[in-house]
Amino acid sequence: MELLFKRIALVGRHQTEGMADLLLDLADHLRAHGLQVSLEKECLLPMTDTVRQRASAYSVLEKTALISKVDLVVVVGGDGTLLSIAREIAPYGLPIIGVNQGRLGFMTDIPREEMHSAILAILQGACQPEERILLEGEVSRNGQILCQSTALNEVLFSRGAMGSLIDFELFIDGKFVYSQRSDGLIVSTPTGSTAYALASGGPILHPTIRAIALVPICPQSLSNRPIVVNDTSVVEFVLLKAQDCRVHYDGHTHFDLQPHDRVTIRRYHSRVKLLHPLNY
Amino acid sequence: MELLFKRIALVGRHQTEGMADLLLDLADHLRAHGLQVSLEKECLLPMTDTVRQRASAYSVLEKTALISKVDLVVVVGGDGTLLSIAREIAPYGLPIIGVNQGRLGFMTDIPREEMHSAILAILQGACQPEERILLEGEVSRNGQILCQSTALNEVLFSRGAMGSLIDFELFIDGKFVYSQRSDGLIVSTPTGSTAYALASGGPILHPTIRAIALVPICPQSLSNRPIVVNDTSVVEFVLLKAQDCRVHYDGHTHFDLQPHDRVTIRRYHSRVKLLHPLNY
Amino acid sequence: MELLFKRIALVGRHQTEGMADLLLDLADHLRAHGLQVSLEKECLLPMTDTVRQRASAYSVLEKTALISKVDLVVVVGGDGTLLSIAREIAPYGLPIIGVNQGRLGFMTDIPREEMHSAILAILQGACQPEERILLEGEVSRNGQILCQSTALNEVLFSRGAMGSLIDFELFIDGKFVYSQRSDGLIVSTPTGSTAYALASGGPILHPTIRAIALVPICPQSLSNRPIVVNDTSVVEFVLLKAQDCRVHYDGHTHFDLQPHDRVTIRRYHSRVKLLHPLNY
Amino acid sequence: MELLFKRIALVGRHQTEGMADLLLDLADHLRAHGLQVSLEKECLLPMTDTVRQRASAYSVLEKTALISKVDLVVVVGGDGTLLSIAREIAPYGLPIIGVNQGRLGFMTDIPREEMHSAILAILQGACQPEERILLEGEVSRNGQILCQSTALNEVLFSRGAMGSLIDFELFIDGKFVYSQRSDGLIVSTPTGSTAYALASGGPILHPTIRAIALVPICPQSLSNRPIVVNDTSVVEFVLLKAQDCRVHYDGHTHFDLQPHDRVTIRRYHSRVKLLHPLNY
Repeated sequence: MELLFKRIALVGRHQTEGMADLLLDLADHLRAHGLQVSLEKECLLPMTDTVRQRASAYSVLEKTALISKVDLVVVVGGDGTLLSIAREIAPYGLPIIGVNQGRLGFMTDIPREEMHSAILAILQGACQPEERILLEGEVSRNGQILCQSTALNEVLFSRGAMGSLIDFELFIDGKFVYSQRSDGLIVSTPTGSTAYALASGGPILHPTIRAIALVPICPQSLSNRPIVVNDTSVVEFVLLKAQDCRVHYDGHTHFDLQPHDRVTIRRYHSRVKLLHPLNY
Repeated sequence: MELLFKRIALVGRHQTEGMADLLLDLADHLRAHGLQVSLEKECLLPMTDTVRQRASAYSVLEKTALISKVDLVVVVGGDGTLLSIAREIAPYGLPIIGVNQGRLGFMTDIPREEMHSAILAILQGACQPEERILLEGEVSRNGQILCQSTALNEVLFSRGAMGSLIDFELFIDGKFVYSQRSDGLIVSTPTGSTAYALASGGPILHPTIRAIALVPICPQSLSNRPIVVNDTSVVEFVLLKAQDCRVHYDGHTHFDLQPHDRVTIRRYHSRVKLLHPLNY
Repeated sequence: MELLFKRIALVGRHQTEGMADLLLDLADHLRAHGLQVSLEKECLLPMTDTVRQRASAYSVLEKTALISKVDLVVVVGGDGTLLSIAREIAPYGLPIIGVNQGRLGFMTDIPREEMHSAILAILQGACQPEERILLEGEVSRNGQILCQSTALNEVLFSRGAMGSLIDFELFIDGKFVYSQRSDGLIVSTPTGSTAYALASGGPILHPTIRAIALVPICPQSLSNRPIVVNDTSVVEFVLLKAQDCRVHYDGHTHFDLQPHDRVTIRRYHSRVKLLHPLNY
Repeated sequence: MELLFKRIALVGRHQTEGMADLLLDLADHLRAHGLQVSLEKECLLPMTDTVRQRASAYSVLEKTALISKVDLVVVVGGDGTLLSIAREIAPYGLPIIGVNQGRLGFMTDIPREEMHSAILAILQGACQPEERILLEGEVSRNGQILCQSTALNEVLFSRGAMGSLIDFELFIDGKFVYSQRSDGLIVSTPTGSTAYALASGGPILHPTIRAIALVPICPQSLSNRPIVVNDTSVVEFVLLKAQDCRVHYDGHTHFDLQPHDRVTIRRYHSRVKLLHPLNY
C-alpha cells in the first residue's frame, strides 16, 4: 500500500527509562514496512552497547540535522515534549504524530500500546489532519529587539516572587484597550485555552477557531474580563510599573522586563500540523 | 460634494415624545442637502395636524414598504431599537446609521445633538463601516420546523418561572460536546458578548472576530465553562428534560420548548452593516 | 444497652415504590430492640392489604400528629425529602437521622443497606450531632405581612419566565448595601452554599460557620460580588422594578412579588438537629 | 469636656514629604486641648532644625518605647501604613485612629483636612469602635518552628518567579479538606477580603462576621472553590511539591518554604481596635 511519507524521524522524551528501546522497536517496525527511519541522538542516552548496536541500522542525528532530513516527525512523550518539538519544527512545516508515554494528552493522543498499528494506519492515509497556531512574541526596549520566541500554549506575563502587582497597558492593532493592575496576563492560543488560561477564568477556544484569548490574572479591577480577538490581530503589552515582571513562552523561555519595555505578540507565520488517527 | 447614498429612510423609537418632530427636523435638513427622505409611519404617531402637514413633503410608509425603497436607514433610539430594525433590514443588506436618543449606546453611537452634521459627514464618505453577524435559530420537533427567527445579541435558552433546572445536550458541527444541567445557555454573537453573556461569566468577543460564544447560566457542574467557536459552526441544542424551557431571540421573540425539541443555530446568511463616524 | 431515644417516627419519600416495605422492615427491626415506632400515613400509600396488616402493629399518623408524639425522626429518601421534613420539624427541636434511598446525599448520609445497624448504633450514642440553621423570610406589602416561610438551603429571588431583569435594593441590619440589576439573588445558609449558590459563583460555607451568603445571579455590574454576613444579621430585599419577580423558599413555596414589596430574612429561631454516624 | 484617652501617640508614613510638619501641627492642636502627645522618632526624619525645635515640646521615641507609654495611636498615612502599625500594636490592645494622607482608605477613613476636628470629636466619645481580627501563621519544619508572624489582610502562599505550580494539602481543624495544584492560596481575614482575595475570586466578608476565607489562586481543578470557615478554625497548609513556594504576611514578611513544611494559621489572640468617626 502507498505511504504518504517516506522519511520518518523518531523523537522521545529525554532521560526517560526504556525510551531508547521503545523508539528502536518502533523504528524496526516502520523499517519493516519500507520506511526510512532516523532517530534523535539525545533520546537514546545513556547509550548502552545494546542500544548502540540496534541503532546502527538507522541514521542517528542531532535534532537540528534530523529535522532537515525528514518528511514527518513522530514524538513519543507527553504534551510537554510535543509542545517543545512542535515549536522547533514549525518553521519547516513538517507534520507531527504524537504518542503518549503515560496518561493520554490533548495532543499526544495515540496510546503507546497501539502506536505500531496506529502510526502505520496514519501513514496509509487514515488520518485526520489538524493545524494549530503558534504565537510569536518580541520584546523591544528603546527600539531595540532584545528577545524573540514562540509559544504553542501561551505567552505569559507574570509578576515575580516579590509579590508586587504589575501595571501595564494593552493595545490591539495599535488601539489602546485598557491599562491594568494585576498579577499578570495570559495571551493564549486555542491550544493553551484549556491549560493555564482556563485556571485563570478564560474561556475554552474551540480548536477550529482562529482566535487569541487575553486573560488577566487576578486583576484589581473586576471589569478587566477576558477578551477574545482575531488571530490576525497584533497584541502589544507595554509595562508601566513593576518591581519585577517576566515574560514566559510556554515555560521554555523567559525574559525579565523593565518598565517601558514593549512586547509585541502576533500569530507566527507557520502552523503546527498534527496528524491524528481517525475517530480522534 | 458627492453623497454615497441618495434614498434615506428615517426610523425612530415608537411612542416616544418628540420623536416625530426630531425626525422631521432631520428630514428637512437632509432634504435641503439634496437627499430623498422617507419616513416610517408608525414612529410619527400620534399623528397631530402639525406632524401630518410637515410629513406631507415626504413619503410616509409602513416599515416593510419603506425598507424596499431606500439605500440606507437612519435609526433614532437606543440599542434596543437598532437591534430590532437591524434584524428586519438584514436580508436587504442595507447599511444603518444609529443615533442615540438618550444615553450613548454601543451601536447607536451618534449623540442626538450632533446628528445633523454627523450624518451628513458619513454620507459624504467620512465613515467607518462595520459588519456584525446575526444568529438564526430554528426549532424543530419530530422533524417539523416550528419556529425560526434571528438575533443580533443572543439566542437564549432559559428555565421558566417555576425555577427548575433544564437538562440538555449540546452539539457543535454534529459532534456531541457535553450534556448540561443548568439555568440555561446563552449563544452569543460578538455584539451580544458585552450584554447578558458577560453578566453570566462569558468573555468579551472583539468585534473583529468571527466567533460565537456558548455561555452556560449557573451550571450545576463547575467544569461547564464558556466555549468560543467559529461562527461557521452549527450549534445544536437538544432539550432532554425541563419543567418549562424557553428559547428567546434578543428578547423580541420567544418559543416554549418541549423535551426532545432540537434548536439549530447558525450564522445568518446576511450581516448587519453599521456606518460609524470617523473617530468612532 | 441504654438507648438515647425511645419514640421514633419513620418518614419516607412519598409515592416511592417499595417504600412501605422498607419502612416496615425498619420498624420491625427497631421494635425488636425495644423502641416504640410510629409511621407516617402518607408514605405507606397505596395501602395494600399486606401493608395494612404489617402496619397494624404500629401507630400510623398524619405528619403533624406524628411529630408531636416522638423524640426522633428517621427520614428515608433524598436530601430533598429531608429538607422538606426538616423545615416542619424545626419548631419542635426533634433530631433527625437521614437515610438515603438512592445516591448518597449531603444530609442523608446513611446508605439504605446499612440502615438497620447504623440507626441502632446512633441510638446507642455512637453519633455525631450537627446543627444547621434555617432562614425565615417574610414578605410585607404596605406594612402588611403577606407570606412567611422557612428555608434550609436558600431564599431565592428570581426573575420570571419573561426574562426581564429585576431591580432591587439590599439592606443589612438596616444599612443600605447596594442596588442591583440582575437575574436574581440567592440568600443561602451554609447548607445551601453547596447547592444553587455554588453554581452562581458563591463561596462554600463550612458547616461550622454561622453565616449567610448573599449571591447575585448574573448581575449587570461586575462589581456585585457575593457577600458573606453574620447569621445574626437581618437582610432586607426591596423590589424596585420588575416585570415579574418571585421569592422561592427551597423550592417548596413561592410568592409573586410586586414593586415596593419588602422581604425580610433572618435566621430562624430554631435549628435543624442532624444525627450522623461516627466517621461521618 | 471629658476626653476618653489622655496619652496619644502620633505615627506617620516614613519618608513622606511634609509628614513631620503635619504631625507637629496635629500635636500642637491636641496639646492645646490638654492631651499628652508622643511622637515616633522615625517619621520626623530627616530631622531639620525647625522640626527638632518644634518636637522638643513632646516626647520623641522609637516605636516600641512609644507604644508602651500611650493609650491610643493616631496613624497618618495609607491603609498600608496602618496595616503595619496595627500588627505591632495588636499585642498591647491599643485603639487606633486612621488618617489618610492621599486617597481615602478602607481603614484610614479620616481625610487629612478634617483630622483636627475629627480626632477631637472621637476623643470626646463621638466614635464608632470596630474590631478586626488578625491571623497568626507559624511555619514548622521537622517539628521545629522557623517563622512566626501576623497579618491583618492575609497570609498568602504563592509560587515563585519560575512560574511552576505548587502542590499542597489543606486541613481544617485537623481534617483533610483537599489537595490542590495552583498558583497559590490566600488565607484572608474579613479586612483582607476586599483586597487580593477579591481579585482572585473570593467573596466579600462583612466586617461583622467572624470568619476566614480560603481563596485558591488559579487552581488547576475548577472544583477548588473559595471556602469560608469560622475564625476559631485552625487552618493547616502542607506543601507537597514546588520549585519555589513562599508564604507572605500582608506583604511585610515572607519566608521560603520547602516541601513537607507545615504552616499553621489561626486567629491571633488579640484584635485590632479601630475608632471611626460617627457616620463612618
